[in-house]
Amino acid sequence: MDWERLVTHEELCAMKMEELGKLAGELRKEIIEQVSCNGGHLASSLGAVELILALHRVFDIRRSPLIFDVGHQSYAHKLLTGRGKLFRKLRQAEGCSGFPTPAESPFDAAVEGHAGTAISTALGMGAARQLSRCSDKIIAVVGDGALGNGISFEALNAASAGGKDLLLVLNDNRMSITPAVGAVSRRLSRIIAGKFYNRTRSAFRRKLRSWPRLLHLARRLDDWIKAAMLPPSALFQSFGFRFFGPVDGHSLPELISILERIKALEGPLLLHVVTRKGKGAPYAERSPVAYHGVGAFEAGSGKLPAPRAGFSTAFGEWMCRTAAADKRLVGVSAAMIPGVGLEKFASLFPDRCFDVGIAEEHAAVFAAGLALGGRRPVCALYATFAQRALDCVYHDAVLGKVPVIFAFDRAGAVPDGPTHHGIYDLGFLRALPGLPVMMPRNAAELEMMLDFALTLDGPVVIRYPRGGDFEEDLPEPGPLKLGKAQLLRESPEGPVIWALGAECGTMEKVARRLREEGIGATLINARFAAPFDAGLARRFRSRLQVTIEDHGPGGLASALADALAAEGAPGGILSFNWGHGVVGYGSISELRRKAGLLPDDIARRIVEKLSSESQKNR
Amino acid sequence: MDWERLVTHEELCAMKMEELGKLAGELRKEIIEQVSCNGGHLASSLGAVELILALHRVFDIRRSPLIFDVGHQSYAHKLLTGRGKLFRKLRQAEGCSGFPTPAESPFDAAVEGHAGTAISTALGMGAARQLSRCSDKIIAVVGDGALGNGISFEALNAASAGGKDLLLVLNDNRMSITPAVGAVSRRLSRIIAGKFYNRTRSAFRRKLRSWPRLLHLARRLDDWIKAAMLPPSALFQSFGFRFFGPVDGHSLPELISILERIKALEGPLLLHVVTRKGKGAPYAERSPVAYHGVGAFEAGSGKLPAPRAGFSTAFGEWMCRTAAADKRLVGVSAAMIPGVGLEKFASLFPDRCFDVGIAEEHAAVFAAGLALGGRRPVCALYATFAQRALDCVYHDAVLGKVPVIFAFDRAGAVPDGPTHHGIYDLGFLRALPGLPVMMPRNAAELEMMLDFALTLDGPVVIRYPRGGDFEEDLPEPGPLKLGKAQLLRESPEGPVIWALGAECGTMEKVARRLREEGIGATLINARFAAPFDAGLARRFRSRLQVTIEDHGPGGLASALADALAAEGAPGGILSFNWGHGVVGYGSISELRRKAGLLPDDIARRIVEKLSSESQKNR
Repeated sequence: MDWERLVTHEELCAMKMEELGKLAGELRKEIIEQVSCNGGHLASSLGAVELILALHRVFDIRRSPLIFDVGHQSYAHKLLTGRGKLFRKLRQAEGCSGFPTPAESPFDAAVEGHAGTAISTALGMGAARQLSRCSDKIIAVVGDGALGNGISFEALNAASAGGKDLLLVLNDNRMSITPAVGAVSRRLSRIIAGKFYNRTRSAFRRKLRSWPRLLHLARRLDDWIKAAMLPPSALFQSFGFRFFGPVDGHSLPELISILERIKALEGPLLLHVVTRKGKGAPYAERSPVAYHGVGAFEAGSGKLPAPRAGFSTAFGEWMCRTAAADKRLVGVSAAMIPGVGLEKFASLFPDRCFDVGIAEEHAAVFAAGLALGGRRPVCALYATFAQRALDCVYHDAVLGKVPVIFAFDRAGAVPDGPTHHGIYDLGFLRALPGLPVMMPRNAAELEMMLDFALTLDGPVVIRYPRGGDFEEDLPEPGPLKLGKAQLLRESPEGPVIWALGAECGTMEKVARRLREEGIGATLINARFAAPFDAGLARRFRSRLQVTIEDHGPGGLASALADALAAEGAPGGILSFNWGHGVVGYGSISELRRKAGLLPDDIARRIVEKLSSESQKNR
Repeated sequence: MDWERLVTHEELCAMKMEELGKLAGELRKEIIEQVSCNGGHLASSLGAVELILALHRVFDIRRSPLIFDVGHQSYAHKLLTGRGKLFRKLRQAEGCSGFPTPAESPFDAAVEGHAGTAISTALGMGAARQLSRCSDKIIAVVGDGALGNGISFEALNAASAGGKDLLLVLNDNRMSITPAVGAVSRRLSRIIAGKFYNRTRSAFRRKLRSWPRLLHLARRLDDWIKAAMLPPSALFQSFGFRFFGPVDGHSLPELISILERIKALEGPLLLHVVTRKGKGAPYAERSPVAYHGVGAFEAGSGKLPAPRAGFSTAFGEWMCRTAAADKRLVGVSAAMIPGVGLEKFASLFPDRCFDVGIAEEHAAVFAAGLALGGRRPVCALYATFAQRALDCVYHDAVLGKVPVIFAFDRAGAVPDGPTHHGIYDLGFLRALPGLPVMMPRNAAELEMMLDFALTLDGPVVIRYPRGGDFEEDLPEPGPLKLGKAQLLRESPEGPVIWALGAECGTMEKVARRLREEGIGATLINARFAAPFDAGLARRFRSRLQVTIEDHGPGGLASALADALAAEGAPGGILSFNWGHGVVGYGSISELRRKAGLLPDDIARRIVEKLSSESQKNR
């Protein structure tokens, strides 16, 4: 197959089961091949191949929108809707997005990169269609992890009223990014273990009947018994869903038969499908977490490149080391334990490490609760998902001066693209009263900042990007003072360059280029986005000042502009950030090239600015 | 009683039921008296008097923290913990906060002003205590509305693992700010209607037994039957809670007896308490929505001052008028229908008005779904609560260019204080790619902006404060152009003043003061916080430019500073905003006085700045 056009509902209906099975194999092969070349979300996409194929067979997606929660499981859908050519450049600038996006195909119903939004989107689309008297099913495919997210729950709560056309397909692979947690997840396990459960329940009931005294006693423990008697699907039925399944998510006949059977029923319907993450690639089946999101790897053996040490590693090591010495330290994350580097901490301190599932808001508020209870929590989230918890940072930590250390990993642009860039939070965080916001230049400085955060009596945010290029030749980080930048190199004339966090590496490369042009530059590691070192900025107000940051507007650039506003900035400011446009996906160097954020671009623009200024002054 | 010290657990235990009843009466009287003088949250606080008293009697709150979700029902708790004097200045600058806040009393366990956080906080505090082997109960009092919030659900989902010490008291008054919606709410109604429900279920079961054929048939409709057979409390039991109640929340004997009974049980426990909002004030019982949050009123008759027309009214009228002409228009809100002015719209267009309950994230994503389905949704939220949905604005509307009109009411400082100010979102919103963010100067301009938003093919945010002081004498709003400010008055010299939204009124007063000093000023209505009119700003770069906004840092001030950064701003910028400190509670004029944001303060500082500049230039 070349996957160059939509494989239609009619074509799929005409296929025998055997042919469909073959098609599934081809989809799987193509996914493994392309992901091994370009990286991508392997395990979840492999797990959803038969499910997606069955949905395309039973529903005509030209009429029934298919909404994938998070959407990184949707590769088979991309191939079936004619994106084979794009898919061969998966996650590259001119290729296919790693997530559904309507800009790429009319068959992607919505942008889906953050978990928990599919049911709400489906209900909204359903409500719109109901107003137009259209009643095709709207299908939301949601993983068991995403189902534990607050937005999913808000939508489940709303579905009984507005979910007439909703088919919620629960793709249960017993994993979100990491194993799923919480009551929802346990309910699902019990459903899968259904036979055992039913047997136990019947035995229990028989026992009760034969011992009337026990029955009497038991009735007094009324609530407990009632709970034990509940069918495992009660949770979903309580939300007004008609519950079907569990069904084997790798059996096309089973999937197709049940979907055909429930297709015409009035919703809200929930179909529980059990899949295996990584299905078809033995290495990925064995280690679904490792093969969740991967870079390029060896397709045959599945051999992954060695992970790079970086900020996450340094963070994890600091947590382990510090926890051993400080009993108050605890860690909280939201289904990102391996990603944020907390795996070792979790295994060394299992009772002090809390993984709350894909629930960033609860993570933040729960961390605040831990702090109110006398602990020193570190709440580690990816910056892009932390956007979910911005209000909680404000309401639950900042307002009460609650000492939570927020560690935002992946703060900066990432290859995954628009849905995952961590480049928008600084404008909000910078405005909050009494919240220091720091970015470390390298691993050593991250550790200093974490140590420093522990000395503060209130909340703090520490942000750092994925990986961490620590190859620079700048002076060692000096001691840290609240709201003070570090002057790394001072030049009696020439531009004054500020960099935030790991962008100090970029700054050094820029300085090298400038030196080649005979221009000396003053280099400052900003350290604090808030409170910003306005004093240092004012000292250099008559010089051209430059900011370099891995963030959109409203961050370091605005902090410096604000600081210089009152007295005027006759030297001018040149800001290098991701700007006001959408930042795409692809390799970081490609993204930087497009945005003019490579050291050469920055150096050239500084030189131009300096020469246009000297022209003016002539 | 003078409520000048903690009424202790021991004292309450020594009281007879009759005395406790008398105490409840006194609490209620004091609440009505003080709220009628100063305004506040009347109805919910009156409804919780007996519940709070019973909790103080059964638990020793010196050991068992009491966490009130949202917290505006906690007035009785404030009085019982010795804050009588402060309470007589409720919501005044030197008085008592309208919400729990640990800075005010050690008996306020956490800052609680936004709904949905209490269970997460309680779980966090519980986890902290479990690490210290302390096992006193932690009590979260949560309203039925707040229980439908996503964070509450995330916490419910987590409770079965970590909620050993949790007592969740569900204060069910059948209302959030407006009547509660969703499956949770319906479950609760069914519990209250328990007797009827049980009778029906038994009859149903008997019928089935007597008609074996029907039973057979029914079993095939398995899922439906199972759902119908579920006990109404199944939802909560599915989350692992032991469920108790419902109990009459105004009967002290009932409350105390059940609390004593379950006190020693292992959690998570849920006690369902049915209360009546406004209890004890007949006018408030009749109209709990009207008496939810009130200004000062006549204590005897309950007569409320006539509501002021303002932005909300204008918004509601625009919605009604436009919906009649444009079938695509729909409205979405999150338990704020009356507050945002949508009551009339809801009654005229019931099938086009969606109240999703206290679920701002779902509201935003659902609105995006409506837009993807071809409708033109207007999602109206209070700005402070919209902070919950910032990620959804980005992920679900901005990224897909989905045409949702976000109308953020109460954008600005409000008398309720820190938890409710809508003054932090601009820094985030301003950074998002392709998202126009507008603030109208008055009702007429709000209507223009809404009309304009409908012509755009993507998302837009329109923010406006509570009320709306439209008394100004400035030129009529001219036509609206994307990213263009309106030059209202031009002076050949003197400062150039920018105001955002209703602050144009402040700007005019400032201009009047300046005129009295013989200073002419150029006046600009910024209109757009993004995209900001950088061209106009650069035109005046050699002059002193001034910004006035009802927002914290990162808004208009930063937009102007950013715009002038590249070329330098020799004239300097003076920014008037809420600054980096915590903005308190109290009357807006008092808050403004403290922050130096009254027209006189602003005018004086402009004059000082001008004279210091002319000194320099001499």
